[in-house]
Amino acid sequence: MSKEDEITSWFARQSRLDPKRFPIGIGDDMAEIQLAEGVSVLITTDTLMDGVHFDLSSCTLEQAGYKAMAASLSDCAAMATVPLCAVAAVSLPTDFGIEHLKQLHAGRVRAGEPFDCEVVGGDITKWRHPEGKLVLCYTMLSRPSGHHPPVRRSGAQVGDLICVTGTLGGSILGKHLEFVPRVREALEMTRLARIHSMMDITDGLSTDLNRICTQSGVGALLEAEAVPISEAARRMPDPLEAALNDGEDFELLFTLREDQWEKLKGFSMVPLTVIGRITDSRRMQIRMPDGRVEPLVPRGYDHL
Amino acid sequence: MSKEDEITSWFARQSRLDPKRFPIGIGDDMAEIQLAEGVSVLITTDTLMDGVHFDLSSCTLEQAGYKAMAASLSDCAAMATVPLCAVAAVSLPTDFGIEHLKQLHAGRVRAGEPFDCEVVGGDITKWRHPEGKLVLCYTMLSRPSGHHPPVRRSGAQVGDLICVTGTLGGSILGKHLEFVPRVREALEMTRLARIHSMMDITDGLSTDLNRICTQSGVGALLEAEAVPISEAARRMPDPLEAALNDGEDFELLFTLREDQWEKLKGFSMVPLTVIGRITDSRRMQIRMPDGRVEPLVPRGYDHL
Repeated sequence: MSKEDEITSWFARQSRLDPKRFPIGIGDDMAEIQLAEGVSVLITTDTLMDGVHFDLSSCTLEQAGYKAMAASLSDCAAMATVPLCAVAAVSLPTDFGIEHLKQLHAGRVRAGEPFDCEVVGGDITKWRHPEGKLVLCYTMLSRPSGHHPPVRRSGAQVGDLICVTGTLGGSILGKHLEFVPRVREALEMTRLARIHSMMDITDGLSTDLNRICTQSGVGALLEAEAVPISEAARRMPDPLEAALNDGEDFELLFTLREDQWEKLKGFSMVPLTVIGRITDSRRMQIRMPDGRVEPLVPRGYDHL
Repeated sequence: MSKEDEITSWFARQSRLDPKRFPIGIGDDMAEIQLAEGVSVLITTDTLMDGVHFDLSSCTLEQAGYKAMAASLSDCAAMATVPLCAVAAVSLPTDFGIEHLKQLHAGRVRAGEPFDCEVVGGDITKWRHPEGKLVLCYTMLSRPSGHHPPVRRSGAQVGDLICVTGTLGGSILGKHLEFVPRVREALEMTRLARIHSMMDITDGLSTDLNRICTQSGVGALLEAEAVPISEAARRMPDPLEAALNDGEDFELLFTLREDQWEKLKGFSMVPLTVIGRITDSRRMQIRMPDGRVEPLVPRGYDHL
């Protein structure tokens, strides 16, 4: 278990949330708050820092603003919920002015507009020391779709097919700044089929699949030859390794019964690929191209 | 107008929020999202940074966690709304570990527990450069009280009395780390009386009163002798100046009609003081102890 997952599960154990008021608490892509009979709202918060999640020496402020908003939208997609709005808190370097803020704003508008998701408030503060770097903390609200409950990480069942959208790996070569969050795809998939568990791949397939397995109390067997490797990953020294462990793919990882998979056969918004199956072993394994079955070790990004 | 207010109003002008979906948008203490007939939720986000809002060389992590949570609760108080829950995003220095996170957690529990307000989710990231300092970004949800609509900054009316809770100034000497957010007081005041406008004093009375005046399209005349000066401010070189311009009092500033003020006569949770009156002049003025009326210049904290 990564250090991040260790502390997250410590926080989850501390928390004594009333499940009637908070149907989904710590440890999922979003938390859910029940406000009235049949009315709930979901919330996610994410911090993006210069030098960690983006690098202002090689990307624009507009791109950083885009990425922050798109990353939050990707959390809405991960639960198959409908984005409502966001608030944006920014910590600015000392030499930042209003023009810099307007560039950030342009990026978040570009990310949010296709999903009718606006920024409704925020907070602006400035570092006092010259080394202080840009921090973007965006928090987003969404609502259940109405046709499918929010999809959790913990719902995977033995025998489920494991699937992903798109292709994986090498996001650092460009996609991490320009990905389109899979909001529409998630809503359409859950309109067509019942999905047992889902999340977006932010820290690498191996690490994120481990989260689904741990939270669902199940194991997994991946087929190495089935993993859809991106063009970018093919330019890396070990393309399979990149597809398994690179962070920030922002694709969807989900599991569902075989009969539900049949309902997604005509799905055309993005390629969907079956990459393995949920097992009762409580271990993660991968069948390599030569037929050997090896342990699949979570080697994705650990934030701590 | 401060640089912060300048950019906030630029953002507000850019925003094309549908007032049916978003009854309160950019520029107030919280934004309001309408989710269903009669069901809405409010949201506020705040960033607190080491070296700006707290200083880890002279305060504990527990105190920093307390302050971050209490500052968000103070925004709920500012609108007289009921806190629901928070999400916490933290950016950690490179030498931070799980024990540090547990200290932050202890502080936010101490702040939230009296208000039944728990953290339901969050995000943890770590700086990669050794100069990276702690950033706490807390986002809180609240709901309308049911007995009084959320109180906005823009509702002040000519002839209103201008009032404050508690005493002002010198918060830097200690109160800024240990204040109790005025959530209960705000809810009780709005149960007893109709309040036209309200906010919490975070950037100094002069600057925050200017926000109420600007957003309400009115002026104000303060009575210097009526301003309740804190014990801490009395230890400053110019106590009145401290009470007018020091930030982080986290007291409530509100305006109401004289007949509504009568209804607060027996209020005992915290001292309430009338410090002036809303005028139709669109200017802020202050009557000094010698009787001279001078311009009241917003000299509080500007975050930009």
